[in-house]
Amino acid sequence: MINTLIKNIQEKNAPIVVGLDPMMNYIPEHIQKAAFEEYGETLKGAAEAIWVYNKGIIDATYDLIPAVKPQIAMYEQFGIEGLIAFHKTCAYAKEKGLVVIGDIKRGDIGSTSTAYAIGHLGKVKVGSKAYAGFDEDFVTVNPYLGTDGVKPFVDVCKEENKGIFVLVKTSNPSSGEFQDKLVDGRPLYELVAEKVVEWGNECMGDTYSNVGCVVGATYPEMGKVLRKLMPKTYILVPGYGAQGGKAADLVHYFNEDGLGAIVNSSRGIIAAYKQEKYASFGEANYADASRQAVVDMIADINGALGK
Amino acid sequence: MINTLIKNIQEKNAPIVVGLDPMMNYIPEHIQKAAFEEYGETLKGAAEAIWVYNKGIIDATYDLIPAVKPQIAMYEQFGIEGLIAFHKTCAYAKEKGLVVIGDIKRGDIGSTSTAYAIGHLGKVKVGSKAYAGFDEDFVTVNPYLGTDGVKPFVDVCKEENKGIFVLVKTSNPSSGEFQDKLVDGRPLYELVAEKVVEWGNECMGDTYSNVGCVVGATYPEMGKVLRKLMPKTYILVPGYGAQGGKAADLVHYFNEDGLGAIVNSSRGIIAAYKQEKYASFGEANYADASRQAVVDMIADINGALGK
Repeated sequence: MINTLIKNIQEKNAPIVVGLDPMMNYIPEHIQKAAFEEYGETLKGAAEAIWVYNKGIIDATYDLIPAVKPQIAMYEQFGIEGLIAFHKTCAYAKEKGLVVIGDIKRGDIGSTSTAYAIGHLGKVKVGSKAYAGFDEDFVTVNPYLGTDGVKPFVDVCKEENKGIFVLVKTSNPSSGEFQDKLVDGRPLYELVAEKVVEWGNECMGDTYSNVGCVVGATYPEMGKVLRKLMPKTYILVPGYGAQGGKAADLVHYFNEDGLGAIVNSSRGIIAAYKQEKYASFGEANYADASRQAVVDMIADINGALGK
Repeated sequence: MINTLIKNIQEKNAPIVVGLDPMMNYIPEHIQKAAFEEYGETLKGAAEAIWVYNKGIIDATYDLIPAVKPQIAMYEQFGIEGLIAFHKTCAYAKEKGLVVIGDIKRGDIGSTSTAYAIGHLGKVKVGSKAYAGFDEDFVTVNPYLGTDGVKPFVDVCKEENKGIFVLVKTSNPSSGEFQDKLVDGRPLYELVAEKVVEWGNECMGDTYSNVGCVVGATYPEMGKVLRKLMPKTYILVPGYGAQGGKAADLVHYFNEDGLGAIVNSSRGIIAAYKQEKYASFGEANYADASRQAVVDMIADINGALGK
């Protein structure tokens, strides 16, 4: 699956991913109103609004971008109905030729991680049949439980030609609380990075591994070190834009081949119409504002990379 | 919510929780057959089988136990239909007076953790209304992202009188890979434990905090140390029985008041009928076998505690 992601990135000359992390207050009034008129102010109404909003953004941007990254929490908060919207969003993005990175940050003991891996990347057996529950292309994985919590995901990736991104250094302010702690003089996230390489060696694509990692844009010095420590590991980079990460900081997340990193923006794209810069599009044309924000983000990052 | 859990434990004299982690191969033939006849060999058929199976176990054990702990991965692997069975199971267990611990091991950056916390412990706003998505009483939380990934759960616990159990030292074989790494001479899990105490101080019940932790039964020496480090923290203890933890090992997970720990068993209870010891019940009477396994587990643990 990493081969497909790289092919998409190269064809579109866009090392970016759009984070589909809908919040009710991002969704334009006319979409909310229509959904609530049809289903009432219910979980189903909220889910319908989210789905229509996402579809608008996908339709307006899919020709420019290689991938989307829906954050499942934003759907899960609306219970079953929200998860139906998540599932529809993933399926629709795939129909449009996009790689879908499910930002689920799961991770548990072995048999339980197997269930998550099957549910999101594989197929579950029911009697003589087998079904894909959610069917993303990649998912994010939390490594706190160690190898036997991550390996089941790697095994399913091998069987199904899928991929994962393992959390190494997250973008949030307190990520250092545990991740930066020194173990024999080296930060814990470097130990995790070494394991990512080990897990990834088992599951290589042509030039990069199907086991990628997450390193926040907000810690560029660490990103630089981690890039070198994991030369064949794709880095999913959250934290650009709204969280404070800048394109110039991200250059060292890439390898000399111009590959090796994919930068996420969520709010900055999907709620672009709320920014002063894109306000002229107006709320009704939120999707066009998102398209322009994608164009600008690609130019910003490719500019920093000298492409 | 910790007060309610403790009250349930005391009334039933049973410091245990039944892990509702259904696997298809645990579910008796007659239940699978009936579900598949009604819905076919589909995700809906599987979900129906899981729900009927769970209901049987709850009906046969609810008067003996204080709580259940459904592991959401086992449902999520069946996609939306599986999650509907999870939701029904949680709601039914609550109807029967049980405390529901959602074993979800979520954890993310601040705004995303807020969404998880709202979805599982709180209420989400939809226009002028508010709805509970899944509505467990407690959930398990992964601490790898640090304080700003955990605090949103604590905040929702305060508002809604709910609780969490934060992973400190998990029961799986490779849990030590990162959790045991020495930081200034002390294992990482102790640093996490100190944070658990800090987070918990903000959210106290009468005698224990609503912020509990997870420490596996498979590491009794560490459990002993952690018990003392976190005197007011309830410990959720997985790993008893099938994973190898023994009652005698668990004594030190409890405080001198006889409280402070709740021991989980999943397979050992819900698939008891498959063990030689309970085989005489027969597959048709799987729920009676589960009831006997609960009686035996309570006696085993109370025996070790000298109760």
